[in-house]
Order: sequence, then C-alpha cells, then structure tokens
Amino acid sequence: MSSTVGQVIRCKAAVAWEAGKPLVIEEVEVAPPQKMEVRLKILYTSLCHTDVYFWEAKGQNPVFPRILGHEAAGIVESVGEGVTELAPGDHVLPVFTGECKDCAHCKSKESNMCSLLRINTDRGVMIHDGQSRFSINGKPIYHFVGTSTFSEYTVVHVGCVAKIDPLAPLDKVCVLSCGISTGLGATLNVAKPTKGSSVAIFGLGAVGLAAAEGARIAGCSRIIGVDLNASRFEQAKKFGVTEFVNPKDYSKPVQEVIAEMTDGGVDRSVECTGHIDAMISAFECVHDGWGVAVLVGVPHKEAVFKTHPMKLLNERTLKGTFFGNYKPRSDIPSVVEKYMKKELELEKFITHTLPFAQINKAFDLMLKGEGLRCIITMDN
Amino acid sequence: MSSTVGQVIRCKAAVAWEAGKPLVIEEVEVAPPQKMEVRLKILYTSLCHTDVYFWEAKGQNPVFPRILGHEAAGIVESVGEGVTELAPGDHVLPVFTGECKDCAHCKSKESNMCSLLRINTDRGVMIHDGQSRFSINGKPIYHFVGTSTFSEYTVVHVGCVAKIDPLAPLDKVCVLSCGISTGLGATLNVAKPTKGSSVAIFGLGAVGLAAAEGARIAGCSRIIGVDLNASRFEQAKKFGVTEFVNPKDYSKPVQEVIAEMTDGGVDRSVECTGHIDAMISAFECVHDGWGVAVLVGVPHKEAVFKTHPMKLLNERTLKGTFFGNYKPRSDIPSVVEKYMKKELELEKFITHTLPFAQINKAFDLMLKGEGLRCIITMDN
Repeated sequence: MSSTVGQVIRCKAAVAWEAGKPLVIEEVEVAPPQKMEVRLKILYTSLCHTDVYFWEAKGQNPVFPRILGHEAAGIVESVGEGVTELAPGDHVLPVFTGECKDCAHCKSKESNMCSLLRINTDRGVMIHDGQSRFSINGKPIYHFVGTSTFSEYTVVHVGCVAKIDPLAPLDKVCVLSCGISTGLGATLNVAKPTKGSSVAIFGLGAVGLAAAEGARIAGCSRIIGVDLNASRFEQAKKFGVTEFVNPKDYSKPVQEVIAEMTDGGVDRSVECTGHIDAMISAFECVHDGWGVAVLVGVPHKEAVFKTHPMKLLNERTLKGTFFGNYKPRSDIPSVVEKYMKKELELEKFITHTLPFAQINKAFDLMLKGEGLRCIITMDN
Repeated sequence: MSSTVGQVIRCKAAVAWEAGKPLVIEEVEVAPPQKMEVRLKILYTSLCHTDVYFWEAKGQNPVFPRILGHEAAGIVESVGEGVTELAPGDHVLPVFTGECKDCAHCKSKESNMCSLLRINTDRGVMIHDGQSRFSINGKPIYHFVGTSTFSEYTVVHVGCVAKIDPLAPLDKVCVLSCGISTGLGATLNVAKPTKGSSVAIFGLGAVGLAAAEGARIAGCSRIIGVDLNASRFEQAKKFGVTEFVNPKDYSKPVQEVIAEMTDGGVDRSVECTGHIDAMISAFECVHDGWGVAVLVGVPHKEAVFKTHPMKLLNERTLKGTFFGNYKPRSDIPSVVEKYMKKELELEKFITHTLPFAQINKAFDLMLKGEGLRCIITMDN
C-alpha cells in the first residue's frame, strides 16, 4: 500500500486563477478521497475545447480559482469508503460525466445521462460534502466537471472512473475520456449507419473526425465532410472522409447540395459544430424514408432549432447524443478494447505532445486551431 | 371468369362535382384495368378526414369532378396485363399509397414511402397512361389518391392493393386501409414503447385512439390522452387511455404538466392532431435520456417546428411517420391477422353504418365530429 494513503498529497497542478489568464503551475494539497471517491495519479491529460470554453468563461458563471482538465488517463492511488470496484494500481480514465448504476438513467439501456453524476459545469466541489479536495495554504481551489486532470493527483467520484485494460497505453487512450468517444459513439451508437451507406459529418475538428472514424469502422462507402475551413479537408482523408463540401462554395443551402450529390439525401448525418444553421442543415440533408440525423455539438443558449414538420413526417429521424451515448463505466472499457484490437485508430488524433510545464502552449495551439489533440505528459 | 372482364362496367359512384357540395350518386363507366392495374368491386368503404379535406379543397388545387374515398375493402373483379400477384376473387384492401417493390424506399427495411406510388393528392389519373378509368358519357371523372372507393367498382394500381385473409370480415377490416393503421403503426412500429412504459397521445380522434390501441397492445402501463375536447375522454377509456390532460385546464404548457405527472417526462409520445403547438409539446414532454416522440398529424403548409436544441442533445428522439411505417402490400395483411387473432380490436372504432345512398350523411357526421368511423355499405 502506498505511503500516501489517507494523507494529504502535495503535488503540482495548473491553476486557472482568473478567466482567460494563463494557468499557473502551483503546488497544491490534494486531500484524501472521501466516501465513494478515488484519488488518481494522472499520467497524461489532453486538452479539449470545453476546457478552453470554461477557462474563457464567457457568458457563464465564473468559477475560479479552478483546476481544469477532463481528458486524461491515470492510476488509482487510493480509494475512499465504500469503493469496492476499484483498487490502488488500477488503470483508469476519469470521465466528466458519471454512472451511479442506480438511477433511472443508469438502469435504462438507452440513456447515459445519470441523474446523480451528470455533467455539472457550475459545481466546483465534490458532491459528498460540498467541499473541494484541492487547496493552497488552506484556501480551496475548485474542481471542474468532477475531474480536474490538470493536476498530478486529483480526486474523482467512483462513478466517474472507467477501469480499463492495464495493457492499454495511457498516452493514447487518454483521448477517449471525452471528445473522441463523443464523436465515435455518435456514429456507432446513435446514427448506426449500415455497411455501404452514406454519411455526412458536419465539422471536421476532433469530434467530427471521430464521428468519421466511426463511419469508417461501420463500413460506410461515402463519408462527406462539411466544414467552412477547406484546410481541414486534407487531414480528414486520413479519417476516411471521401468527399468534401464547403458551404461557402455554394449559393444554395448545403442540405440541397448534399441531396443532389446523393440522390435525395445521405443515409445518416452527424452534426459536430454546435452552430444552429449546421444543425438544421444536418437534419434536412438526410434522405426521406430512413434518414437519421444526430446532433452532437452544443449550441448557443438562445439558439432555436427550426424546420418544416413535413421534413419529419417524411420519415426522417432527429436525435441528440451526449458523450456518444456511452455509459462511462460500463462502455468505455470496450472502446479501449476497440483500440487494442486495432479497429479504432487513435494515433492520428494525437498531433502534439507537450510537458506539463508547457500546458499554456497547448491552450495556444487550440486557440489557433492547430492540430487535433495535444497530449500533456504529467510526469517528466 | 366474370363476364365483365375486359368490359366497361357501369355502376354507381358518389361523384364530387364541386368543392364542398354534396356528393351525387351517379351511374359511371369504369374502364377495364390496364397494365399493372386491378379492378375492384368495393363492398365497404369508410370515411376519413382526408376525404373531407380534399372535398372541401380549401387551399389546394381543386380536382373535380372526382370520386373520393380511400378506406375500403373489396374483391378483385379482374386484373390487367402484368399482374401476377392478384387474381379475380381475392379479398383486398386498396391503399392510398403504394409499394412498387422495386425502388430504393421499397428495398429499404425502414421506409414505406415508395418513389413510384407514394400518395399524390393532386393527381386525378392513373400513372400508366395519365388517363382516368372513370367517365360519365365519355367525360372523365377524376380519381383520388389512386383508390376512389366511393364507387361500386374502381381501378387501382396493383402496388396499392393489399391481399388479405379471405376469412377476414370486410366490413371491419376496411378501416385498416388508412387511419387505424396509421395510428397503430405509429405506436407499434415507430414509437415502440416497451411493456410497462408510459405514453402520451395527442389528439383522441380515430388516429389517436388507434395509437392508444397500439400502446394497449404493447402493454404500456400509463397511456395519457391529451385533447382540447374533454367529451372525448370517456370514449378513450375503451382504448386503454388511463389518464387525461386537457391543456385548457392549465396555465402552464402541457409538456410541463406531463413532465410533472411522470417524474420528468413520458417514455414515448405520439402526436395525432397536426397542430404545430401540439407537435412541439409532444416532443418536449418526453423524458430526457430515452424519450421518443413520433409525429403523425399532417401540419399546415406554413407551420414551423421550433424547439431548443438542448432538448434534442439531452438524448430525446423526434421522428415522423407516414401510414404507421407499414408497407401496404407487405405489412397490412399482418395487421388484418392481428385483428383475426383478437389482439387488435376494430369494432370499437366503428360507431356508425350507413347505406351508400346516404353517404352525405357520413360527411355530416364527420363534420360534426360525431363518432369515429362510419362504414358505408356499397351493396344494399
């Protein structure tokens, strides 16, 4: 048993002191895990748009000082009271949303929106006691979506931890904590295209490319990438995208362009931008009779989805998904296995690697739109 | 072989000479069936709102003189060139939409929206030669949705004819040609509620009650009927409806009322009114994580469906259906069998019976909202 069990751990963490200001690597105290919590040693973390979004904190409740980070991989250091499914040494992925296994959502085969542990971006504390486990000189530093992986050690609710194959390389599978699983699952679990079918993917960032990867795995014969940035098309080819449409190149709505390309519409579409016009186009570009459109991108708070109801009555389906409909504990280990069996390729998502000390550079890369995923190595 | 084969048949038909004017029983000539057509002797027909809608012809292309009618049962009198699946004497239901068995929709397991024979309300002629098979003194009388069942004999494309069990009572199963199958299939084929689940049905006319009948057959434990007309609630109990909500009784939106009744929302909803506000309510009243809303009612041409996209992203599904997703030839015979096995009750839909000579009285009943289905007996 580690000598740190039951003790406060002092370690390095990147603290966001204020909205939009560079993170500062600080020495923080990480309290031991309480009831139904585990303390993790984070080995690798990556950066996702959501981290940047809540760091910028535009139009949201600012919750600072805070330790961001939610795409990561690590090893269980110790467990709190009542934790029986995990033990020190287990290899794990922390996840920003949880699975209590006891609520109506967890008991439903269809939902992964756990009532107890569903993502909560405003809460900066643990649900057990409403306290933070992070502090500097006794002053609390807030958590982020229950994960706060920009720290060498973090405390997470057991329901937000997926136990994975100990042979899986943590510097690769860490990206499955959020964006890649979100896009992949949107296609494989929700759109469910059949072999040889056509799919349109709106938005060719990491999530959209993961949706394309899902379409490639499903054996789709046409994977149409839609993006306003033509420079993304070359990279997208590696993810199985076969054709490209830049809405800026046409005077007519992109749904009409796609319908003309595909004799009436694609079989499936997956929307990964969160822009309301793209959502509407993604719905209206699917074929009548059988088309299914899946919404992934998170819209602006005041956005309104509008369509003519006959588009629905002509047997189109519109669905939304959250985290690719994966239940974090039950399903994510199988996504890791898909990578281990070489069905899923993760390497092509990883375009940069940086040491923890240079975490602000990862923010710069994302703000400039350079690359897909930057892996941050904690232990260097 | 009947002596009428290959001959023009003179028989009685109810002709709509002008929009909104009483039908006139006339002697008409019915030409022999041409290539891929069959001529049917209609024994029973019933009246559906769609007949009344196109008889009133408000805001549509008026196509007159016309023989309306599309819910019916009859017997094949003769068949045209190329027809191999039907023979004189077969018991059949004509259907307002078809199944060519050759187009992409017919080959898809998911669609029933045949490219060749999909409902066309503006066309008053047969697709083979663009001519009508009905005439009076050589002057053509137009067809309606390819069926025109308000006639003792009619000519229908073979793709719009379901061959059914000859033991099935035609005066009952005739209602399966349209509305009842539409509502039943919306629940059983599209919403697919599981045993013990909750369903909200918007609109308690014949289609909505058929949707409720589907929920009863599926073993739903709560079937919530929503209607602005409280007088429909008593009758709806016979169809398994367990609870009633009249939106007029509340100051808050009905979706909120239903969410409160059901701990967050119903598992499934089926919208059968065609009113845009009811469509939005039907979508928003389903539970996040797994709720499925199915739209059946046909909206106003200028209606716009609006919702906040987060309602979708929280894992709700919105689908539309046409004719309950039943393929007319492949699937309707099995619905007749469901009645024959007493799983499906049709008698309770049949509230009136009238002789053909009194067909205008059936229109009066429907305009007054009295009863559900009125069976018109052709041969009396």
